Amino acid sequence: MDFTVDSATPAVQASFDATPAPRLRAILQSLTRHLHDFVREIEPTIPEWNNAIEFLTAVGKACTDTRQEFILLSDVLGVSMLVETINGQDAGTESTVLSPFHMTKSPARALGDSIDEVGGSRVCVVSGTVRSTSGRPLAGATVDVWQCDENGLYDVQVPDVQPAGNGRGLFTTDELGRYWFRTVAPSHYPIPTDGPVGALLNATGRHPYRPAHVHFIASAPAHEEVTTHAFVAGSPYIDSDAVFAVKKGLLVDFCETTDSELGVRYGVEPPFIHATFDIELEETAS
Amino acid sequence: MDFTVDSATPAVQASFDATPAPRLRAILQSLTRHLHDFVREIEPTIPEWNNAIEFLTAVGKACTDTRQEFILLSDVLGVSMLVETINGQDAGTESTVLSPFHMTKSPARALGDSIDEVGGSRVCVVSGTVRSTSGRPLAGATVDVWQCDENGLYDVQVPDVQPAGNGRGLFTTDELGRYWFRTVAPSHYPIPTDGPVGALLNATGRHPYRPAHVHFIASAPAHEEVTTHAFVAGSPYIDSDAVFAVKKGLLVDFCETTDSELGVRYGVEPPFIHATFDIELEETAS
Repeated sequence: MDFTVDSATPAVQASFDATPAPRLRAILQSLTRHLHDFVREIEPTIPEWNNAIEFLTAVGKACTDTRQEFILLSDVLGVSMLVETINGQDAGTESTVLSPFHMTKSPARALGDSIDEVGGSRVCVVSGTVRSTSGRPLAGATVDVWQCDENGLYDVQVPDVQPAGNGRGLFTTDELGRYWFRTVAPSHYPIPTDGPVGALLNATGRHPYRPAHVHFIASAPAHEEVTTHAFVAGSPYIDSDAVFAVKKGLLVDFCETTDSELGVRYGVEPPFIHATFDIELEETAS
Repeated sequence: MDFTVDSATPAVQASFDATPAPRLRAILQSLTRHLHDFVREIEPTIPEWNNAIEFLTAVGKACTDTRQEFILLSDVLGVSMLVETINGQDAGTESTVLSPFHMTKSPARALGDSIDEVGGSRVCVVSGTVRSTSGRPLAGATVDVWQCDENGLYDVQVPDVQPAGNGRGLFTTDELGRYWFRTVAPSHYPIPTDGPVGALLNATGRHPYRPAHVHFIASAPAHEEVTTHAFVAGSPYIDSDAVFAVKKGLLVDFCETTDSELGVRYGVEPPFIHATFDIELEETAS
């Protein structure tokens, strides 16, 4: 009857035996085992357990409508990347983390529109084609993009400086599966360090930086949705992303171009920065 | 270089290699391994991961100065009991969970005082002796007690009904190591069910009840501090405590007595309820 270090796990697992949903039961019984194994291995002192409680409480309290500190914690522990990798497509464009800045809806925009409503120093055009892994271009696919500005800040972080929706856009591909929009080249940036996750990085000697990237969620009927980034090749921190999100297949050249024909096509004056990021979606198993 | 399901754990563990404090490094590298093992075993979908983020965020947001939902979560997952058991004394009185209601300081009271400032229906006297495991009575030991009322509610839960400090007392043992105080017999009660932990219990078909008990933290110079409960023997839910805290050695008879000599000693009119709970503290290794 007594709860002991050895009887703890079967006792708590048994308490979940009557869970109606089998999946929830399996998750909680697995969680119980791994959590107890961790506790048995580390043997936390009471003050250490208190610190853990206080840390998790602070992470929860740091969350607001425009900040998700638990996603940040999941990110810096590699859990987000692990979950994304497990759920990634078997073929087509690789996925990477959602990250904590996708909490507001991107405004619908027309192809060619600028997502930079503030006016950065240098125009950047991002373009690409959404295809099925069979090679067929996907007309009418949805391309949700969001990014920070040239200073490494997202709209939700500096609402006094950037209007809501700056750096975000929801685009629909044309009849040839193409999308294109104007923006600024994103900067590398530190994840928010003024909360408990920042304190964790500081205590562990880890830097908080992410290499420069543009976020994408691409979806089309009868295809897998993919959450990914286009990483700016050569960006600082490309080899030590604080959230482990870089994949070689997602590196994209953001190059200055003087091509006047391209300038006419995208309605911008050369020279400008141009990046091409094609996306392949896997057909949904039918 | 790419983050894969297999390379994830060593990559995240390596990110903690430069942690200055060896104990923090060990904790985080162990956490990373067990957390990743859990994720690899369960293979959560993105919506399931989102649910987990939202659940943890809600737990954090439910915490206030007088409510600690993360301790409650630790309790219902058996983690609190596991940590207490690992840290318990090798000899002497067994420890059990702190629970989430020890967030306010107990008021210092004189031996024999009542901790019931509201006036319950039946007087209860709790008495005992604090001894070293060698048998020596410990004069001047500190006995911190807190409990719910006859309706199963703590002061912090119903500040309009119970004054702050009701059901709580900080006592100092007399020259013979004895303590005694007046109170009411505690009721069994449900842990708070209006938050995310309550939702978890509901979703898993678990009842939220704890058997009746009085909380104790006893300490004395040169001795281990013990956090424990006196459980009311025969209380409902004694075999299925929602937080797994019952130990056979902590069951105490709360009996009605008509002993007038006892009544004179404690200054109460028989019949009254009497419980005896002696506490043994282990000498600190010197």
